[in-house]
Amino acid sequence: MENFTDFVLTCPLPLEQYPQVLMAHGGGGKLMNQLISQMFAPTFQSTWHQSTLSQVIQHDAVALNLPNNKIAFTTDSYVIKPLFFPGGNIGSLAVYGTVNDLAMSGALPLYLSVGFIIEEGLPMETLWQIVQAMQKAAQETGVQIITGDTKVVDRGKGDGIFINTAGIGIIEHDQIIAPPAVQVGDRLLLSGDIGRHGIAVMAQRQGLELETVITSDCAPLSNTVQALLTAGVKIHCLRDLTRGGLASAVNEIATVAGVDIHLEAGAIAVREDVQGACEILGFDPLYVANEGRFIAFVPADYADQALAILQKFNPDQNASIIGEVVSHSQGKSGLVTMTSQIGTSRIVDMLSGEQLPRIC
Amino acid sequence: MENFTDFVLTCPLPLEQYPQVLMAHGGGGKLMNQLISQMFAPTFQSTWHQSTLSQVIQHDAVALNLPNNKIAFTTDSYVIKPLFFPGGNIGSLAVYGTVNDLAMSGALPLYLSVGFIIEEGLPMETLWQIVQAMQKAAQETGVQIITGDTKVVDRGKGDGIFINTAGIGIIEHDQIIAPPAVQVGDRLLLSGDIGRHGIAVMAQRQGLELETVITSDCAPLSNTVQALLTAGVKIHCLRDLTRGGLASAVNEIATVAGVDIHLEAGAIAVREDVQGACEILGFDPLYVANEGRFIAFVPADYADQALAILQKFNPDQNASIIGEVVSHSQGKSGLVTMTSQIGTSRIVDMLSGEQLPRIC
Repeated sequence: MENFTDFVLTCPLPLEQYPQVLMAHGGGGKLMNQLISQMFAPTFQSTWHQSTLSQVIQHDAVALNLPNNKIAFTTDSYVIKPLFFPGGNIGSLAVYGTVNDLAMSGALPLYLSVGFIIEEGLPMETLWQIVQAMQKAAQETGVQIITGDTKVVDRGKGDGIFINTAGIGIIEHDQIIAPPAVQVGDRLLLSGDIGRHGIAVMAQRQGLELETVITSDCAPLSNTVQALLTAGVKIHCLRDLTRGGLASAVNEIATVAGVDIHLEAGAIAVREDVQGACEILGFDPLYVANEGRFIAFVPADYADQALAILQKFNPDQNASIIGEVVSHSQGKSGLVTMTSQIGTSRIVDMLSGEQLPRIC
Repeated sequence: MENFTDFVLTCPLPLEQYPQVLMAHGGGGKLMNQLISQMFAPTFQSTWHQSTLSQVIQHDAVALNLPNNKIAFTTDSYVIKPLFFPGGNIGSLAVYGTVNDLAMSGALPLYLSVGFIIEEGLPMETLWQIVQAMQKAAQETGVQIITGDTKVVDRGKGDGIFINTAGIGIIEHDQIIAPPAVQVGDRLLLSGDIGRHGIAVMAQRQGLELETVITSDCAPLSNTVQALLTAGVKIHCLRDLTRGGLASAVNEIATVAGVDIHLEAGAIAVREDVQGACEILGFDPLYVANEGRFIAFVPADYADQALAILQKFNPDQNASIIGEVVSHSQGKSGLVTMTSQIGTSRIVDMLSGEQLPRIC
């Protein structure tokens, strides 16, 4: 609960009257209307075009005129536990996560929908903090939260709050940014140190006492991607390193692209405190989720330019070139290998089963 | 569980190995990949453009080329209890509901995203039936389920399955179809008999033994709306009669449009068995949710043409003209009144508090 200093506004609903969310707040009647018109609409309003605002409140679907007709569309539900963690909460995560998925397809994120599934009894103040965090994240990333839905489920049939966001972005370039575009010889860039989000959440959940508080890397990636595109960097593939972490993302892309990928362990930044917590908790940082890190596959000629942009945008994150796409001499493609810092080589497999449940 | 006769396909996942959904099915590793690649992708595939299919499986966001750049965007989460009810299940509801929201803005529904929040332990066979129902509903309405997300929450922290769908439709006409367009003199049409969905769900939930099984009206509305538009009917506003029922929808529109609305009780169709069940359960059908009924505000000159189209599309639903928009002589606008079948007049207020929780 470290990160509440930003929330100075008073909850617009009378807390003494409605200290908790009731079933009726999702029932389609007066209380739901009050929640939408007094909390959601005024808070998200500043991200809305004035023209769409009235439509949102008054109608089920919102009409949009897009600047062009080539779009990206994505969705994610967020069920993270606990709802608040060092560096963010479920609200900021629900905005950044979907914005980042759009960014990874090379799209400029524009619009979000939001679906709340609230457990009866959630403190109204908690909802208010989450809603404000969403608004702040939306403003930071330049997206507008323009349509939504609210459902309330019985006490014991949910877990505080689940949030779904769906996003629309526009694609303004002609590049194909997807795993099949990855080619032998491509360099693999990593935008920063890994493992912080998963460890921040797990440490919070398990009440782990660490020397330093590990803060999630939860952050928007769209500005960095737009900077790469604007600079004319040729990009073959982008992927954010969420569930399954770096190892799973690289494995998935290697499989789909039908290539092998070789990584250099020494180039992959892991902060000392994160490494230490991983050892205590028994995790491999390669498989731990991040919420503000991505990998980029670029032709070798563009690698240095791309790295310079990553480093300029986030000077404290230790972005680096961590590997390269290699041709496969064996029968089966999709192999990911890694050279350790002492020179040995090993296979990096995909995550099997559950490692860190409900970290997003 | 009446409506399973359509589901003849065998679950593509080995049920003896995974009879229930595990936390790992949402963990970002091999089991989640298996669920997506063996169940979701092949099932939804037939609604996908071949070109988008590969992108969906391999990437977070899907890229779309829309036929034009004027779109409608909406979202809804579905938390209905029980998951299966006479006439449908949470899967068909999640497709029809969002398709209908798009249709109500006069858009042609094209694409859906789907976000599953599954409680650990949900029988895999149940998930499979729901997924098939979604696919069937998507085919029926001509929409494509093109991107998705899967989360699994701990046993006791959800309620079987919650589903979010977000939808994109294109707007091919130049009419403004929204509450502010409603004018004094407009006729109000109702597409069919009301109250069936809410009563079907409540009867199922409470184990009510009725003489006849009341079947939900759960159905897509997009074809009917497209027929109205294609025929050149001028439409001022459309609204589907979900949570809060007919009374809440009419009240909301009256308030936003700043008009009064007068209804004729005798013109509003309620089936005898629904009326009987409402009396047993203590509900007023005017406030009971529907999932396949809508109202349309049209200029008086278009009322008969519109009614003929509604009746032609659904000859057994008793579509009718149920009222008219009137000017208000009192200081406060937004008043909804109704003349009863014996000639008395009363105010129809908005639903206050909860009446039927979790019916969608």
